[in-house]
Amino acid sequence: MPEKRKDPVTGRWVIISTERGKRPSDLRIQKALPQRGFCPFCPGNEDKTPPEIMAFRPGGSERNRPGWSLRVVPNKFPALRVEGELNREGVGLYDKMNGIGAHEVIIETPNHDENLSNLSPKRFGDVLWAYRDRMLDLKKDIRLRYAIIFKNHGEAAGATLEHTHSQLIALPIVPHLVAEEMAGARDYYNRKERCIFCDIVRQEIQQGERIFLENQQFIVINPFASFSPFESWILPKRHAAFYEDSQAYEIESLGRIFSETLRRLEKVLDFPPYNFTLHTAPFTERSSEHYHWHFEIIPKLTKFAGFEWGSGFFINPTLPEEAARFLRDQPL
Amino acid sequence: MPEKRKDPVTGRWVIISTERGKRPSDLRIQKALPQRGFCPFCPGNEDKTPPEIMAFRPGGSERNRPGWSLRVVPNKFPALRVEGELNREGVGLYDKMNGIGAHEVIIETPNHDENLSNLSPKRFGDVLWAYRDRMLDLKKDIRLRYAIIFKNHGEAAGATLEHTHSQLIALPIVPHLVAEEMAGARDYYNRKERCIFCDIVRQEIQQGERIFLENQQFIVINPFASFSPFESWILPKRHAAFYEDSQAYEIESLGRIFSETLRRLEKVLDFPPYNFTLHTAPFTERSSEHYHWHFEIIPKLTKFAGFEWGSGFFINPTLPEEAARFLRDQPL
Repeated sequence: MPEKRKDPVTGRWVIISTERGKRPSDLRIQKALPQRGFCPFCPGNEDKTPPEIMAFRPGGSERNRPGWSLRVVPNKFPALRVEGELNREGVGLYDKMNGIGAHEVIIETPNHDENLSNLSPKRFGDVLWAYRDRMLDLKKDIRLRYAIIFKNHGEAAGATLEHTHSQLIALPIVPHLVAEEMAGARDYYNRKERCIFCDIVRQEIQQGERIFLENQQFIVINPFASFSPFESWILPKRHAAFYEDSQAYEIESLGRIFSETLRRLEKVLDFPPYNFTLHTAPFTERSSEHYHWHFEIIPKLTKFAGFEWGSGFFINPTLPEEAARFLRDQPL
Repeated sequence: MPEKRKDPVTGRWVIISTERGKRPSDLRIQKALPQRGFCPFCPGNEDKTPPEIMAFRPGGSERNRPGWSLRVVPNKFPALRVEGELNREGVGLYDKMNGIGAHEVIIETPNHDENLSNLSPKRFGDVLWAYRDRMLDLKKDIRLRYAIIFKNHGEAAGATLEHTHSQLIALPIVPHLVAEEMAGARDYYNRKERCIFCDIVRQEIQQGERIFLENQQFIVINPFASFSPFESWILPKRHAAFYEDSQAYEIESLGRIFSETLRRLEKVLDFPPYNFTLHTAPFTERSSEHYHWHFEIIPKLTKFAGFEWGSGFFINPTLPEEAARFLRDQPL
């Protein structure tokens, strides 16, 4: 019998319809594998990207030259521009703004053949540290309210270059779903005087059936109301609203568990395309009580598009408890 | 310069980033064309579907036999079931319900090689009339609050059978995005004492730059804050909250303009996969003042998935005003 489940934070419902196919091998998957061709992200081609914003250069090499282990550059085809004043305008009943913001690319490794999941936990931690660095820097720009950190891995998940990279889009507005999550979490806090994500962490540890990884600082779960098969969240156990306030030991621990999460997803789902997004409190948020940052990883296994976002209604063919069992039992 | 636009109903923002490619030929398109193989929706195979719920049989032929021009059957692999009591349950902080609801398939034509856009406006009207009939019938079931009517056309848009069909999912809950639209429209009505969609219709007719079709009863626009390139909405000019209350002459007029809308989209975008969804007031809604039914058609031209619905933030590479110009100027 299918069932409907409600996301406790946003209030969205999802149908979990297990009769529509559920085992990993039943899901139609377009593999995400590296391809070849000219690559603007490879060492030696530093002049094919806009000048770098930051880089990790273990040997202390020159800017915009080879010798880096991680490099952050502006997107060459930015969806937004940093320059200029923020202009707001009404057109009859419509509202618009100019496209002020930042759009950056985090090149995670100089090696074209490496994937994020192949990086050592230490180098994975460097990527997570770069996210933190960029957020702290952009937070100084008072026009900006939110930075979306995300990765599109594989063509079917929207990647247009194979060389592994993540992206950052900083905005003068808070994205809709973030605002909705904040509102849901604030509402719960007002009723209960507790963070809803802290309650989720407690209940998931206690029930055990949707957790597939845990270390001292983090848990990884397939959330109760997963919208997508094998959707996986990484949550810090300690309450923390702002990702950019993370300590070095936490980022290091996150690097280890994030790396293992991706490797488990790749083993169970045979190297699927995926997206992940950091969910964290807006720059302008004053309270650190009610929100709790986390990463959401979504393997791209089903085709959803117009219908789902036309109605806000999702059908997930895989029970989160079964997804967790597959991911937990997978030998690495 | 890219710009950000706000959907006046839901308050969602979208980036219109025209530097990322905008002409129809620049959009990566996977064609949606009919394929062959055994088809459970073809005449003669009536016993391969569950028994029909209704059918139009111009010659008065027998139920579940050939001779129909349109046929509605339960989905063989339903996401929801009609039978049973509605059970609601809490699991710690989580909420769930069993999968009560209806999932039906509207087979739009007996002819495997026809598409919705090839049907005569009169037969297109029959499809729209069947939507209305099914909604009026399901509305009698007091457990149900909303019926989502939608079509997935082409594999990339989620269709799993080529034979052209639409679907209906009736639910004991109001989907999230519908609830959000209702709330946005109610809020506007409370402030202004006017329907926001009526104001949109007025402004679009007056400005003219986003309209590409118009007849006595309807307009077709590329909405100001289109989330997706060539997103197209068909709106009745007369205020009406409930689609199922439409009159015969309105359905007939809608059949004509809907058919021409699809044919224009197919000509301009070279037969794209697409989704459409009917947006209408919930069965349980008592006020008919603030909401206004309409169809939203979304050609599947870009790959959005995890990132977009992970953040609720969309980037659209095509200006709605340019999309409207292409669609308006296309000779048929």
